[in-house]
Amino acid sequence: MAQRTMTSPATILGGLVAVLISLFAQGAEAAQSCPKPQSTGGLGVVIERSIGQVAIIDHVKHRVLCHVGGFGDLSHASVVFSPDERFAYVFGRDGGLSKLDLTTGQLVKRVVQSGNAIGGAISQDGRWVAVSNYTPGGVRIFDADTLDMVADLPTATSGDTKGSKTVGLVDAPDNEFLVALYDAGDIWRIRMTDPARPVIDKYPNIGKLPYDALISPQGRFYIAGLFGEDGMAMLDLWETRPKIHRILPEYGKGQKKLPVYKMPHLEGWTFAGEQAFFPAVGEHQVLVADTHSWKLTDRIPVKGQPVFVMARPDARQVWVNFAFPDNAWVQVIDTRTRKIVKTLQPGPGVLHMEFAPRGHEVWISVRDKQEVQVYDTRTFARLATFPMDHPSGIFFTARAHRIGL
Amino acid sequence: MAQRTMTSPATILGGLVAVLISLFAQGAEAAQSCPKPQSTGGLGVVIERSIGQVAIIDHVKHRVLCHVGGFGDLSHASVVFSPDERFAYVFGRDGGLSKLDLTTGQLVKRVVQSGNAIGGAISQDGRWVAVSNYTPGGVRIFDADTLDMVADLPTATSGDTKGSKTVGLVDAPDNEFLVALYDAGDIWRIRMTDPARPVIDKYPNIGKLPYDALISPQGRFYIAGLFGEDGMAMLDLWETRPKIHRILPEYGKGQKKLPVYKMPHLEGWTFAGEQAFFPAVGEHQVLVADTHSWKLTDRIPVKGQPVFVMARPDARQVWVNFAFPDNAWVQVIDTRTRKIVKTLQPGPGVLHMEFAPRGHEVWISVRDKQEVQVYDTRTFARLATFPMDHPSGIFFTARAHRIGL
Repeated sequence: MAQRTMTSPATILGGLVAVLISLFAQGAEAAQSCPKPQSTGGLGVVIERSIGQVAIIDHVKHRVLCHVGGFGDLSHASVVFSPDERFAYVFGRDGGLSKLDLTTGQLVKRVVQSGNAIGGAISQDGRWVAVSNYTPGGVRIFDADTLDMVADLPTATSGDTKGSKTVGLVDAPDNEFLVALYDAGDIWRIRMTDPARPVIDKYPNIGKLPYDALISPQGRFYIAGLFGEDGMAMLDLWETRPKIHRILPEYGKGQKKLPVYKMPHLEGWTFAGEQAFFPAVGEHQVLVADTHSWKLTDRIPVKGQPVFVMARPDARQVWVNFAFPDNAWVQVIDTRTRKIVKTLQPGPGVLHMEFAPRGHEVWISVRDKQEVQVYDTRTFARLATFPMDHPSGIFFTARAHRIGL
Repeated sequence: MAQRTMTSPATILGGLVAVLISLFAQGAEAAQSCPKPQSTGGLGVVIERSIGQVAIIDHVKHRVLCHVGGFGDLSHASVVFSPDERFAYVFGRDGGLSKLDLTTGQLVKRVVQSGNAIGGAISQDGRWVAVSNYTPGGVRIFDADTLDMVADLPTATSGDTKGSKTVGLVDAPDNEFLVALYDAGDIWRIRMTDPARPVIDKYPNIGKLPYDALISPQGRFYIAGLFGEDGMAMLDLWETRPKIHRILPEYGKGQKKLPVYKMPHLEGWTFAGEQAFFPAVGEHQVLVADTHSWKLTDRIPVKGQPVFVMARPDARQVWVNFAFPDNAWVQVIDTRTRKIVKTLQPGPGVLHMEFAPRGHEVWISVRDKQEVQVYDTRTFARLATFPMDHPSGIFFTARAHRIGL
């Protein structure tokens, strides 16, 4: 979620202070009662970013179960789930990796594993949690049960002793992780066959400054966006000897060097048949590419600079939110006709969206209105509204069952 | 699961006796203790077909939690799950619709809603459970909470007072159900906007004797196989005014009229990019079609007459089981190279397979060996074996989060 700015020393100091505050808060919050849910398939969490807090929700019954504090700096947070949908692993901006028991509301364990982190992933078999770090750069891998570190994969080299920041960390089939190195311009493919000694295939020279990446829903294509030049880097994991393909040469800030309010997120590209829908950079457009040729086939005008371009699970609709100053709006595109079929105004600061697993509803966080809103995706009626403290990311436990989430 | 034979009066009588026995058994079995699971995302059920029993398993921890009896005739059974993954709805051959609480092992409710049934589905929003009936024909729709009937959709007409048997019932996006009418040769699209008065779009003359159907993973294509002639009928739900397309004219028993030991199942077609992999009828082949043109592009020789051709969730592998006399075997095809990469011999009576949601493991039921076996899909090593009474269908709760399952 949120900004892609790089870290200054002041931010790190702020982060450390936040950790101390959060560790204090944790003691106070852990006792908060959370009703025990009967089952976990309909649960989710909402990040309340300003106060290091997470709300546990039941998206099937439309209920907020409780709020749990003590997560540190959640200004850029993401979440993955254990395969049994019992535990949420929360990755904070401050390097904090927290394990939350959704059935009790207890923050079972928390480690501050680096000074600054950007996100993480859980392995296909659910045994390993990997974290993508900025300070120092690299990837660290933890036992999902104990949060003990099992592997430290630094990115420091003789020429770069701080180590490259890592971004776009995802899980892939056959118990692998994929990650991009921002400063170095590499992609790493990390095989967890022997967790104590992960084997890394390194793909160098993918392009300048990869800032985020995504994996396609079946785990075949890993695609990194580049901050330092136009175009994207793509690895096709189905190739016998995968190599970097440069695709979509038009993609990026372009010759015009438009002001870019926020680099769009790459998570949630829509793959509808052989078409991919994704956000343009700096332009009021959603782009469409053919996934055979990886060439642009269409540009759909939208209300602002898109941030997330997210597929309803049946891929018939994509829902788009926008960077400032258009972040009060959401637009819905029909992927068949490529027309905008609905424009909604949830309110200022629309940051994230999460669909019910079969797609009939969507939850939307509206940060500056301090609300999460629930919509019917067929009628576009608003079904429910929940007060939340500066909500950002929304994550449902069904992600436990999806490759790359 | 199991045979596609049509029902004789003797079968119906047998079914009624089974119901009486099962209602008796239910009282005896309901008290069996089932340890309360901490969460439900890793649970599943295995049908123990000969004794009307269901095993509740934890596929993450590789444990059998308990066996629950009282389900009646499970010789052709299927299962769907509530969106919160708490309840399993079990559809029996005898028209029984049973609601099992996975967190307690209690058979909460059971209705015998027809004399003979073939399967069912749960709506996208989880509120309605629909059952596909043989005797009498038609579809009945129940409130998922109470199992009270909310709609009865008979297929009887002035020309066919018994009513067409219905097959291939699935859920579709926008809270719809789709079903094919075996005797009438129709497809019905049932819209649940007003549950008491479902609106039905009827597509007649789709071809002779549709015996099963499938919906593609994103819920776009509904495809029915025909017992009475070659070729298949396809409805593209994304069309503005959908109409029946006849596709794959070679598909079927063919001119040679080979002996067909068992009509293959259509569930579990593999969609890998724009290629679909599916079982041939009566030939030792897995077929491949292009999903643009819906024309056959390849025939892959395999060990026997395929029954299920099921995709590992990343679609890189398809796993194939076979009809008698080759039903001791399983073959694995690499979808990229279309070569068989592994032949396994789990034992006689391989009936069904279910993948872990992210695909690292597969559970296989081996009826005549009275076992369920678990394999690693990367190394093909057998990881665990569980004794079961004539196991057939295996269903994991992650299905709650998938369109059409």
